[in-house]
Amino acid sequence: MQHDIAVADMQLGDEIEGFYVLSSASLRTTGAGKPYLTGTIADRTGSVDLVVWDYTGELSADSAGTVVKVRGKVSEFKGSRQFAAGRIRPADGNDRYDLDELVPTAPIDRGEAMREVEALIASMEDADYRRAAEAMLAKKREVFARIPAAKSVHHGFVGGLLMHTLSMLRTADFLAGEYAEVINRDLLLCGTLLHDMAKAEEFTFSPLGLATDYSLEGQLLGHPVMGAQAAARLAEELKLPREKSVLLQHMILSHHGEPEFGAAVRPMCAESELLHLIDMIDSRMEIYAETFSELEPGTFSGRVFALEKKIYKPQG
Amino acid sequence: MQHDIAVADMQLGDEIEGFYVLSSASLRTTGAGKPYLTGTIADRTGSVDLVVWDYTGELSADSAGTVVKVRGKVSEFKGSRQFAAGRIRPADGNDRYDLDELVPTAPIDRGEAMREVEALIASMEDADYRRAAEAMLAKKREVFARIPAAKSVHHGFVGGLLMHTLSMLRTADFLAGEYAEVINRDLLLCGTLLHDMAKAEEFTFSPLGLATDYSLEGQLLGHPVMGAQAAARLAEELKLPREKSVLLQHMILSHHGEPEFGAAVRPMCAESELLHLIDMIDSRMEIYAETFSELEPGTFSGRVFALEKKIYKPQG
Amino acid sequence: MQHDIAVADMQLGDEIEGFYVLSSASLRTTGAGKPYLTGTIADRTGSVDLVVWDYTGELSADSAGTVVKVRGKVSEFKGSRQFAAGRIRPADGNDRYDLDELVPTAPIDRGEAMREVEALIASMEDADYRRAAEAMLAKKREVFARIPAAKSVHHGFVGGLLMHTLSMLRTADFLAGEYAEVINRDLLLCGTLLHDMAKAEEFTFSPLGLATDYSLEGQLLGHPVMGAQAAARLAEELKLPREKSVLLQHMILSHHGEPEFGAAVRPMCAESELLHLIDMIDSRMEIYAETFSELEPGTFSGRVFALEKKIYKPQG
Amino acid sequence: MQHDIAVADMQLGDEIEGFYVLSSASLRTTGAGKPYLTGTIADRTGSVDLVVWDYTGELSADSAGTVVKVRGKVSEFKGSRQFAAGRIRPADGNDRYDLDELVPTAPIDRGEAMREVEALIASMEDADYRRAAEAMLAKKREVFARIPAAKSVHHGFVGGLLMHTLSMLRTADFLAGEYAEVINRDLLLCGTLLHDMAKAEEFTFSPLGLATDYSLEGQLLGHPVMGAQAAARLAEELKLPREKSVLLQHMILSHHGEPEFGAAVRPMCAESELLHLIDMIDSRMEIYAETFSELEPGTFSGRVFALEKKIYKPQG
Amino acid sequence: MQHDIAVADMQLGDEIEGFYVLSSASLRTTGAGKPYLTGTIADRTGSVDLVVWDYTGELSADSAGTVVKVRGKVSEFKGSRQFAAGRIRPADGNDRYDLDELVPTAPIDRGEAMREVEALIASMEDADYRRAAEAMLAKKREVFARIPAAKSVHHGFVGGLLMHTLSMLRTADFLAGEYAEVINRDLLLCGTLLHDMAKAEEFTFSPLGLATDYSLEGQLLGHPVMGAQAAARLAEELKLPREKSVLLQHMILSHHGEPEFGAAVRPMCAESELLHLIDMIDSRMEIYAETFSELEPGTFSGRVFALEKKIYKPQG
Amino acid sequence: MQHDIAVADMQLGDEIEGFYVLSSASLRTTGAGKPYLTGTIADRTGSVDLVVWDYTGELSADSAGTVVKVRGKVSEFKGSRQFAAGRIRPADGNDRYDLDELVPTAPIDRGEAMREVEALIASMEDADYRRAAEAMLAKKREVFARIPAAKSVHHGFVGGLLMHTLSMLRTADFLAGEYAEVINRDLLLCGTLLHDMAKAEEFTFSPLGLATDYSLEGQLLGHPVMGAQAAARLAEELKLPREKSVLLQHMILSHHGEPEFGAAVRPMCAESELLHLIDMIDSRMEIYAETFSELEPGTFSGRVFALEKKIYKPQG
Repeated sequence: MQHDIAVADMQLGDEIEGFYVLSSASLRTTGAGKPYLTGTIADRTGSVDLVVWDYTGELSADSAGTVVKVRGKVSEFKGSRQFAAGRIRPADGNDRYDLDELVPTAPIDRGEAMREVEALIASMEDADYRRAAEAMLAKKREVFARIPAAKSVHHGFVGGLLMHTLSMLRTADFLAGEYAEVINRDLLLCGTLLHDMAKAEEFTFSPLGLATDYSLEGQLLGHPVMGAQAAARLAEELKLPREKSVLLQHMILSHHGEPEFGAAVRPMCAESELLHLIDMIDSRMEIYAETFSELEPGTFSGRVFALEKKIYKPQG
Repeated sequence: MQHDIAVADMQLGDEIEGFYVLSSASLRTTGAGKPYLTGTIADRTGSVDLVVWDYTGELSADSAGTVVKVRGKVSEFKGSRQFAAGRIRPADGNDRYDLDELVPTAPIDRGEAMREVEALIASMEDADYRRAAEAMLAKKREVFARIPAAKSVHHGFVGGLLMHTLSMLRTADFLAGEYAEVINRDLLLCGTLLHDMAKAEEFTFSPLGLATDYSLEGQLLGHPVMGAQAAARLAEELKLPREKSVLLQHMILSHHGEPEFGAAVRPMCAESELLHLIDMIDSRMEIYAETFSELEPGTFSGRVFALEKKIYKPQG
Repeated sequence: MQHDIAVADMQLGDEIEGFYVLSSASLRTTGAGKPYLTGTIADRTGSVDLVVWDYTGELSADSAGTVVKVRGKVSEFKGSRQFAAGRIRPADGNDRYDLDELVPTAPIDRGEAMREVEALIASMEDADYRRAAEAMLAKKREVFARIPAAKSVHHGFVGGLLMHTLSMLRTADFLAGEYAEVINRDLLLCGTLLHDMAKAEEFTFSPLGLATDYSLEGQLLGHPVMGAQAAARLAEELKLPREKSVLLQHMILSHHGEPEFGAAVRPMCAESELLHLIDMIDSRMEIYAETFSELEPGTFSGRVFALEKKIYKPQG
Repeated sequence: MQHDIAVADMQLGDEIEGFYVLSSASLRTTGAGKPYLTGTIADRTGSVDLVVWDYTGELSADSAGTVVKVRGKVSEFKGSRQFAAGRIRPADGNDRYDLDELVPTAPIDRGEAMREVEALIASMEDADYRRAAEAMLAKKREVFARIPAAKSVHHGFVGGLLMHTLSMLRTADFLAGEYAEVINRDLLLCGTLLHDMAKAEEFTFSPLGLATDYSLEGQLLGHPVMGAQAAARLAEELKLPREKSVLLQHMILSHHGEPEFGAAVRPMCAESELLHLIDMIDSRMEIYAETFSELEPGTFSGRVFALEKKIYKPQG
Repeated sequence: MQHDIAVADMQLGDEIEGFYVLSSASLRTTGAGKPYLTGTIADRTGSVDLVVWDYTGELSADSAGTVVKVRGKVSEFKGSRQFAAGRIRPADGNDRYDLDELVPTAPIDRGEAMREVEALIASMEDADYRRAAEAMLAKKREVFARIPAAKSVHHGFVGGLLMHTLSMLRTADFLAGEYAEVINRDLLLCGTLLHDMAKAEEFTFSPLGLATDYSLEGQLLGHPVMGAQAAARLAEELKLPREKSVLLQHMILSHHGEPEFGAAVRPMCAESELLHLIDMIDSRMEIYAETFSELEPGTFSGRVFALEKKIYKPQG
Repeated sequence: MQHDIAVADMQLGDEIEGFYVLSSASLRTTGAGKPYLTGTIADRTGSVDLVVWDYTGELSADSAGTVVKVRGKVSEFKGSRQFAAGRIRPADGNDRYDLDELVPTAPIDRGEAMREVEALIASMEDADYRRAAEAMLAKKREVFARIPAAKSVHHGFVGGLLMHTLSMLRTADFLAGEYAEVINRDLLLCGTLLHDMAKAEEFTFSPLGLATDYSLEGQLLGHPVMGAQAAARLAEELKLPREKSVLLQHMILSHHGEPEFGAAVRPMCAESELLHLIDMIDSRMEIYAETFSELEPGTFSGRVFALEKKIYKPQG
């Protein structure tokens, strides 16, 4: 019997006991009328199908997204690995396990990342945009540092929004220098900080912090409109000049570039045009990184849904 | 010398004195170095090119959208009528002219129309939606009754927004009855009343009340986003339940149907789907009416810009 | 043993005997070489998978769409209900069952609906259009009252075409009043009555009256072209003036709005524009109604194929 | 004074008398109040602007499309040639001029072309399709040999439909041999003969035989639908089997290939697929021929409207 | 026991021994921990699922595309035929089987086809284009005669490229005569010969000669660009005039017609326009032929992936 | 009389003598039969219409793009400035004027820019990519430093290609650091240097160095294909490994992102994806800069052709 083996390392025939996230669960009945539990268990390294025969315990579909303790054997079903558990129970307060091992988390030092964000805000010269950035960060600090930036696609892990935003801020800072003739650095940085903040309200989150679904607002309004509304309120509270309030809202509304990709309006100023392209760069590079992590050098991926194409990982 | 002849009735050779709107104006110099004024004068029946040779008065490009008194003769230039004025001056406080004759105005009794709108609001059973409708009307009453619904396309005349909205409310009322199984009449009526309210801030208006251009907000945010924001504030003030606030905002954001036609999100509930189609009906029927007014029965129009096609006016 | 339980009400473990429609059937052999029958049984409330082990009777794939008598038990297979029948046989002349319970049927009084259609036709003032409507109804009366308006999508039940057409006629009648300036009421009503008539030839129908597939003409010509051709013949028989014949054909050819959605030409007169939008309203509202019937308030549907999006059913 | 100089050969300063087609005409008044006639005169080689100062004769806009006798001088206006006529009058019965020189005509021997069409029809083995082809040709013989195939785009000259159809029939004959495994030669030839026949009713024609505009049916129904209707009637008269009638109609309805290019349905059998591609070949090759006739070898054309691109004429 | 039965003729219950291509293979383990082999075997008439219980031999996923000898019985699994083999082993040098029966091959005499291609090349009058055609054929002769023209879609069999190219050359020859006014026959023939030559490098091929996947160049550059590059080199070697080299490259780059279908540039000369349409004709006719081979007269196919539609095979 | 006034500073009534570029020219005849010259003169600050009455000199349309000496007066025609020259003659070897004042030139120090490009190349660690970059620069050094990057759109001035490429190299350098996990810096830098090199052959250039038109290759092959071909040759000469050659070609072929915008293939590796986005950033920022240079703060531009939208220049 092995303990707390990473899901990615489970081998056919391994007998394992450990703590995992129950990602999904469903109570079923066999043809012979016997109850069983089927679903998925996962940790930060991946997921594997689960089956528990003759199950009569308390777990059900509602338990999805919680931590369980299992004991069983890695078998195979239709060409995929399957974890056949003899025992399973919810984890409780007395159990000791490392949540960071169970939930996928951004590969960054979040404390240091927050300090870098704050330093960039502090460097803004325009008092209006700086106050807006500071106020927004003050309101959202904790959630901003914790939530993923998406359900799956890219940055879909704890700390994803912070990682995505900081990476974009760095590029924004660099490009504001390169194109100082047309770019207002403070507007660009402030818009970059705010552009995805409403993801906190666009999604519903599991107890472990992952985005599980869109919220009512997320579906019927969309995060660009929600974010622009929050910016408008903030601008009002801070008594920002009208043009600055409109520009900040416009940055957020247009950051998806084209209406067919979710922009409420198309970018019409240099800073919103650039924000959209920086967002494209960071999201695409992360998609490549996540796809490459499961790809051999010198081979093509399957069709990547978010890119609508295959991609190639060079040999060297 | 004739007086205040309607522009539509001006004939080649007519000598006319009267009051007209100076729609546009430009100071120029002839090859020989002499100053002259060129532009357009108009009343509610149409417009005609204007030229004033050897002009040295106070009128200029900035005078566009004001009323002038002119005296001159209807001549012809390159196949079009041209009003060659010998005299021209701004109208002043002592002048007597009928503004309703000069500015195109909705062919409805605006007082009666407002009463019909109010009666429909009063008939709403859901107290939340009724209060929202009443509060919005209280805030915007005067501007709602006066402004056009567009720069040109359709309903581009004084009272156009009221006419467009009332016509849609009537159809909404009828269809809410036909599809009572899926339609919440109060949500549909409230969303219909609010859907174009932000046109008041989307445009800038001439002194005579016509839409002359898009405002900064109109260009960078768009009236669906602006209207949804106003609805969100209203819902907050009135302490509407969260779902009702979200649904009202969604109605406004999605009433253009598809992102490529300006919707921030696509309609996702029965009432927003229907609002979009009612808006299509009323705007298209008005475009047909405006195009037909200048078309002989049994003939085709030229290409109608807003429809991207020719249309046909049947003989009988 | 229970009798004739509605499919929607069948519970795991129920033992049931009754009459149902055999929607589909397939004879198979087990790995061990034993014959069995698999397929689906249905009534107007829904459908359930069927399995009959060791089956050697006369039923086969060709029996799809007929009524059978079954006796068996509701079990479960891969998370779905399955009716495991011990006995099954074709219904015959001596059996007593209510066909209306077995086949999905429009939730309207069809006799009354036909009278309302006739009253609307009788109200037409233009003798040409009225005669065309009367003649078409005389030719098609029975099939018009009986067939579905589609295979699935919307109104895919017995009486669907009548229900869809009447609903559109009511809205056409209302809107013809609202837009009397541009709409010829008689042309609109006549075109509405005729617009989907050719569905009778576009589909092939099962013995129980449901649309099972497209006919040769349905695939190679399409119902708009077929309907326009029928209208042209009718107009010839009735010696309608040329323009009226052309307009009626145009209404039918263009009622899908855009070529990419099946219109042979785009709408180019006010009545065809409006007919298209009324068709959109009635088909969309029915799709919402049919989707809502299986959706909890306050939840989103899955992706609705015909709408290419999810929809939301509000809480109240 | 020169006589009947071809328009293409008119040089600045030439004094010319001759017969030309008055393509368009408009009565105007100068700034000084003097009447003049402006318009265009043309022959088969091209067209030139016309002006007649102080004109008080009987010609007007309604005279467009008739033959006139003019006397005047070739001058220049804004960089283009202009024919300034001192005299102009309608041609009458006593005048002698060669109509073939005035109207653009297909560069083929039309009698011989008709015989080739007939020989191809006679070679058809399927009696049904051959009878349909013969009957259609009998009905339309004269108009088929005379009308253009378009207003402008390609084959817009007298005899254009015959030239276009014969050229396609030859290619159809060849390809039916190459792809005998999938192609029914008789269906392909019959469909090719019929595919554009309804152009006779799609356009209105000038007295000289050129297409001047779309007819009411041409706009509201389109020639594919009109042609399919004619084929359906013919099939009925000749008592063709149902499938053959449907296939002939389908060939005509689908010959534009895609709905966005005017097809009422997409091609769904091998013969309609091939008919569409043969039509593409002949129309495109004629567009190249017509564009090349005004292009130097080794140069690019301007943007060709019907192709939405520039084309290149190689040097050798 | 029967021997070497064609896959298309295998019946449920047949006991068969013979040689087949192992198209795909996968080693699996049952729930009970026993190893088995699953995959597909095929010959030129079709393919069937394979299962070998308790398999412990040398075959694995890497054996795909090789010939095996099997012995077993045709059974059924989930409504499809399945070949349950008791024995299976790789074919070796001592085995006797007819490779032509195992691998799908073009239904033409390849030697005769090559002679016809050469005769067409020899008939070219322009020495430059003729030398280019001869040189390319000299370089690629063997591969040109052998490889398929695609992975699946159309002409996906041994000799497919030769069959496709010859068929196009014949049509090119015919059309060059029909449109001699605008078409340079030698450029058209030369471009046709070269247009798909780079398919040899676009794909990787199985030992038996079928295209198994795209190569690195095939994915990252595409065969039009690769073919144009080869043509440029050839033109350089042969010292062709600049315009002729550019035109040949352009023919190859543009033969897919539109960028969205893989053209690097759109056709801009008459010969490239025609080449594209000839390619459409031959590929579409082959798709019809391949689809018809499995379709009953008077029925519709399922959706044909490459055409994005269903097609109809007429009754006669 | 003033001398060599910048075109942007010319005022109505100014009398000026100086050297300008004759951008376009056309010989015409007045209604009265007198010859005159019309066209445009320009310097790096802008352009103005030119007219020379009674002109009989040697200048003609062929003189476009050369330097002339003019003497005349700034007048006005139809609301625009017009330079009415009394004298005009070609500049000759004895004339003294500053070409840099006449031709628009990149606002950079070209020598320093070249050194920065070289330093970035020298910093590449992969010897293959570095040698490719060095070899390409060695071949193209002079033309690379001199030509514009476009006819108009953006960077359409002398030195434009160098300015555009250096700016992109800097951003590439920065982003290669940010995304070191997925980006091969040397491939990215090398691809960036090469991506637009073929613009040297895509255009024809005026004697003064501006792009006047597309070359034959530019139209029929396009610069991505031409550039990839040059890269392939270079890779062959330098004996680069196959994958590196393919990747470099792929970078160039795909740098326009989507086929509809001119990409021969879509980007399929991280470096080509990023190159495309960096190209978007630099071209868009330059379009903003060029549009802003003629726009007041707080106003919208007219529709910018290359962006298909209006843009806004904020107030501050």
